[in-house]
Parts: sequence; structure tokens; C-alpha cells
Amino acid sequence: MNTSYKFQGWLGLDPSSAKGNMQWKEYEPKTWEETDVDIKVTHCGICGSDLHTLRSGWAPTIYPCCVGHEIVGTAVRVGSKVERNIKVGDRVGVGAQSGSCLKPECEECASGMENHCPNMVGTYNGKYADGSKSYGGYSDYCRAPSHFVVRIPSSIPSEEAAPMLCGGITTFAPLKKNGCGPGKKVGIVGVGGLGHFGILYAKALGAASVTAISRTSAKKEDAMQLGADGYIATNDDADWSTHHARSLDLIVSTVSSPNMPLEGYLQLLRTNGQFIQVGAPEDKLPAFNVFPLIGKGVKIGGSAIGAPREIEEMLALTAEKGIRPWVQKRALGEANKAIVDMDEGRARYRYVLVNEAHAKM
Amino acid sequence: MNTSYKFQGWLGLDPSSAKGNMQWKEYEPKTWEETDVDIKVTHCGICGSDLHTLRSGWAPTIYPCCVGHEIVGTAVRVGSKVERNIKVGDRVGVGAQSGSCLKPECEECASGMENHCPNMVGTYNGKYADGSKSYGGYSDYCRAPSHFVVRIPSSIPSEEAAPMLCGGITTFAPLKKNGCGPGKKVGIVGVGGLGHFGILYAKALGAASVTAISRTSAKKEDAMQLGADGYIATNDDADWSTHHARSLDLIVSTVSSPNMPLEGYLQLLRTNGQFIQVGAPEDKLPAFNVFPLIGKGVKIGGSAIGAPREIEEMLALTAEKGIRPWVQKRALGEANKAIVDMDEGRARYRYVLVNEAHAKM
Repeated sequence: MNTSYKFQGWLGLDPSSAKGNMQWKEYEPKTWEETDVDIKVTHCGICGSDLHTLRSGWAPTIYPCCVGHEIVGTAVRVGSKVERNIKVGDRVGVGAQSGSCLKPECEECASGMENHCPNMVGTYNGKYADGSKSYGGYSDYCRAPSHFVVRIPSSIPSEEAAPMLCGGITTFAPLKKNGCGPGKKVGIVGVGGLGHFGILYAKALGAASVTAISRTSAKKEDAMQLGADGYIATNDDADWSTHHARSLDLIVSTVSSPNMPLEGYLQLLRTNGQFIQVGAPEDKLPAFNVFPLIGKGVKIGGSAIGAPREIEEMLALTAEKGIRPWVQKRALGEANKAIVDMDEGRARYRYVLVNEAHAKM
Repeated sequence: MNTSYKFQGWLGLDPSSAKGNMQWKEYEPKTWEETDVDIKVTHCGICGSDLHTLRSGWAPTIYPCCVGHEIVGTAVRVGSKVERNIKVGDRVGVGAQSGSCLKPECEECASGMENHCPNMVGTYNGKYADGSKSYGGYSDYCRAPSHFVVRIPSSIPSEEAAPMLCGGITTFAPLKKNGCGPGKKVGIVGVGGLGHFGILYAKALGAASVTAISRTSAKKEDAMQLGADGYIATNDDADWSTHHARSLDLIVSTVSSPNMPLEGYLQLLRTNGQFIQVGAPEDKLPAFNVFPLIGKGVKIGGSAIGAPREIEEMLALTAEKGIRPWVQKRALGEANKAIVDMDEGRARYRYVLVNEAHAKM
């Protein structure tokens, strides 16, 4: 194994980095362990979390920070104790999580819910147990514990696999966990990076119908092409929540605005329906009347990415059903422009950075 | 069957009735149907809903209104088409619901979730399909459709069975439905009429532990006597939510204050935990940060009473385990005083009105 490569990537040095001000610099990766894999990054999706983190939107970020947690590339160094029998040369990926305690006494880790481990480590802006920092995929190389490194099925192109590792799993996991399947009527709030995956996976899981819910009708045609059976434009119909009352069993909300019409969404649910929030706002959810929860037995929940076993399940379904996300390739060299375009809502529906030194555009 | 009796009871005529100003008067019961049962009322529990309704707290009440929906008595008239083969002379009860559409095409009614039927009829302040009104159990007689009239197991005293029909089922149903049982750590917010049933039923269902949660320690001894294993007094420990973080799988909240420390309660939940609200506030729940829902996969839900099959299941468990709720008998003649005492929080833990004309005090 040639391990002479350097770890360098686009670093955010302060909140202004979110405005297209990241700097290309070298950094110190996590301390090498024999359970680790070094990945030569070929592709990395641009996720909304990247922007939230660069601007310290959720909490103060530990700068310098190299974002990007939808990473696909080639294993170039593997420790003697890696999981999944990963070999040098394998095409692999890592999503938004690259660490957790993995202790047998941790009930989350022990039961395949590593994404809920109280000591989970994000793929960037995180700290491993030894204090070393995690750095993401807007970079040449990425080091990650093999427990969180998955193999990419051969039929899935790298630029399509990358955004599944966060954007895809964030919608696939709550759909699967909350019963999306034959007979279930599913709503997806927001037709963006996450929402477009939501439509694709709800269909792939066999939902009886999928309704896309957006403020305007601008994305209606796209939603229908993605496989939606219905579309609700909330700005176009003042009585949308009454007109579509009790029509859905499960809603996955990918929208991260604290101004969301939560009570209206709850009205769309049938008895025992569920509303699952996956878009994480920087503010609180609005106050809401509890009567819909009581009268209809409805639940409000949340979901965070997915565990490695869920990511593998999603990739297998994707390969089996030939699911094709809508991605647009952007050169890693132009990452600063790409994140600004992303922040302005221009992606249709996921930008994927291509490392020109390691892969063809 | 002697049907010469009159329907008379304590009527609320306006919101002031909640202050102990109900009037004893005759009223017109629902139109008789061959599926109905007339019950000679012997016992009726006093439920918080009675106060909310008398004062038009949730919505404008249709006065005159005879409240009371924890009714036990003797069947004195049965139609030719009654369910459960109810006979004249049987000891029966009716809870907070006395009607629903019962149509085969109603998925709630068809699947044993009558309590979620969009056309559910409350035992008082409701209207049946023909427009006639429902009147409750602060009365001599009560007429109700037999679908919602259950038999009381012989081993349960009437004054103990009565408050189970709303207060009991309101906590039993969500505990059962949300997995209360061996291995589960359960919290009950509020040690009152509902909460005391919550502790009893959580224990009876085999919860690994039951923690009572209240503002002060005033009810600690009672809670422990009821079977609680732990007690949290939120006013006595500023860091209660941190000290007890991630300690519970399921919380049933019986408190109906819009000022509840919802985020603190969510902090008490473990991964995939659930918070179920059964106390219905007259205002909204507070705004809350969605991160606990996302990070821990926690859900917030609600629950409304229970379906007849669930009431029967609860009564069977009560008889089997010999569960004894804490009730205090009050004379029906003094109902006006009893509701004021109830509103002031004096009940330990459920007042039950005894109709002196039909039963011994």
C-alpha cells in the first residue's frame, strides 16, 4: 500500500466559508487505527448539512472543518482489522456517520442502531474517542473506521451512490421503519435533495400512492416524473389541508423551516398516521394543537440518517430496482461556487462533486 | 320491562355550571332504537372532561348538558337487537363514547378503533345521527347504544369499575398499544385521576419499572403505594431532566397544562422512546426543538380513550390481577359540591357519585 498521499481538502475557517469562501488546505486526519480505511475520494454529494455546519447554523462549528458526508471512492489503505473484508481497490462509501462507541454494552450499537449511539461521530466536525477530528469528503482522501464504510454495488454509478449515503438514507430509513409499503399512502414534504429521494424510495418500497407536498407547483412535473401519484401545492389552495384531510398514512417531512404549517400536515393524516421530520431546522418547530394527536392517534417523530445495515439494505434495493436519483456533477475545484448554488436552491436535485484528479467528469 | 321512569339529572345550563351551579331537571333522552340499552345509573365517576365541558373550555357546549361518562348501573330496558346479549338486570357500564357510525366502510369502526371514528358520539354533549342529543351519568337513567355498553366483571365493585371506563381506559389503551410490558421502563406524568390509573395499569401490564413524574413531592408516598418504583419532582430538582436523561421507554402524560416542560420530558426518553399525551389542554402544546426527535428517533403521540374491545380487555385484566383504584364515594345529591372539590384537585384519586336512590353509599 502506497500511503504517501496527503490529506487536503476545502476547509471552512469561519462562518463566511458558507458563502463560498472555503480554502484548499492540508489537514491532519484522524489517528490511524487498524480498523480504519483510507478512501481516495472520487465523488462527494453536497448536502444541506454542509451549509448548516459551515455557517455554524446548528451550533458553533469546530473550525477548520472540511465538510462533505456523501463520499464514494477507492479504498487505498486498509487496516488489519477492518470489517466487511474490505480490500485495497474496492469501491466504497461513507455517509454522515463515521464513528460510534461500538461497545457491547451500548444498546444502540449492540442492536444495529449505531446512528442513535449517544457517542456517534459525524463524518466531519466530529471528534473520535482519542480526540482527533473527523474531516469530510470535499477532499482528496478521507479516513474512516471500517464499521461505517460500505461497499457500493457494481451497478450503481459512483455519482449516484454518493448522495444516497446521506440524502438517500435519511428518507429511506424512516420510510422503511414506519411501514412504507403496499397499502400505505405516503406524503413527502419538500421536493429537494432529500424529498426527491423520498419519492423514489417510497415508490420502490411499494407504497400504494406517493403525494409530493411543496409550497408552489414549480416542481410538480419533476415530482410526477420521479414517480409521485399526487401533488399538493400549499400556496395555490388556501384549503389544501381540508381538501386532502385524512388522505395519508405516513408523511416524511424534508423541509427545515420553523414556519412549516405543521397543523395542516397533521390534518392530512389518517387515524394512527405518522409525521416524521427529517429536515432539521435551526429553530424550534411551531407550537401546535394536540387534539389531532389525541383524536386520531397520530404521532410526530424524527429520524436521523440510518445505520450501516440500513444503508446496505438501501443500496441493495437501489440496485435491485434500478433506482436512478437525479444528480448533477460539479467539479471539486469549483466547490465554492457549487455550495452557493446549492444554498440558493438550484440543485435538481443533488449536486455531486467530482474529484477531477481521481475520476472523470 | 317497566319503562315508566323519567330521565332526569344534573344539567349544566351555561358555563357557570362548572362552579357548582348545575340544576336537577328532566330532559329528553336519545330517540329509542332497538339496539339501545337503558341503564338505571348507580355510579358515575367525575372526570376532568366534565369540568372542561361544563365551562365550555374546549369548545362551546350544547346546553343543557348532563355530564358524566364513567357510568355503571343496571340494564332496565334492552332493545331486540342489542349486542353482547345484554339482559335486563345485568350490571353494565358505558364510558366516554356512546356512538360511532359503525358502518362497514368506516375503516376505524371496521377495525375495532371506534374511538377514532370521525363520527364518534360522546356520551354527553354529543349528537346521534338522527339529531337527538346524548346525556351523561349525573342522572337517574342513561340511554346508550349497546355497542358501547360493556358488562362489568362480577369481582369489580361498581364504584371502582365506573372511573375505569374513561380514566382507566385513557391510560390503559396507550400503555398497551405502545408496548408497555416486561423490559419497558414507563413514566407517568401527573399523579391524579388519570395518572393513578396509569401507575396501576403500567405495573399490571408488567413494566420493568414505573416512574411517577409530578411537580412537587406531595404525592410521592401515594405514588409509591400505588406501585411506582421511582418518583421525579420537577420543582425540587432544577436538573431533573439531565439527572434522569435516557431513563424511560414510554411516557404517558396525563397533565393538561400548555406550560408543560415538554423538552425536559423528551430528554427522559431513550432511543426510539415515545411520549403519549392523553391530557387534553385547552391551549396548544409549547413549541419544541425537533432535535431530540431526530437524534433519538423519539415520537410524540396522543391517545383518546379506548375502543369497546380495549375496555373489555382492561376490565378482564383488572379482575384477573385484582387491581384496586383509589376512589372516594360522593352522593349524587351533592354533585355540585363534588365537582368544585374535583376542580380544586382534592380527589384522591377519583370521585365517584353514588345515586342514593339506586345504590347504597
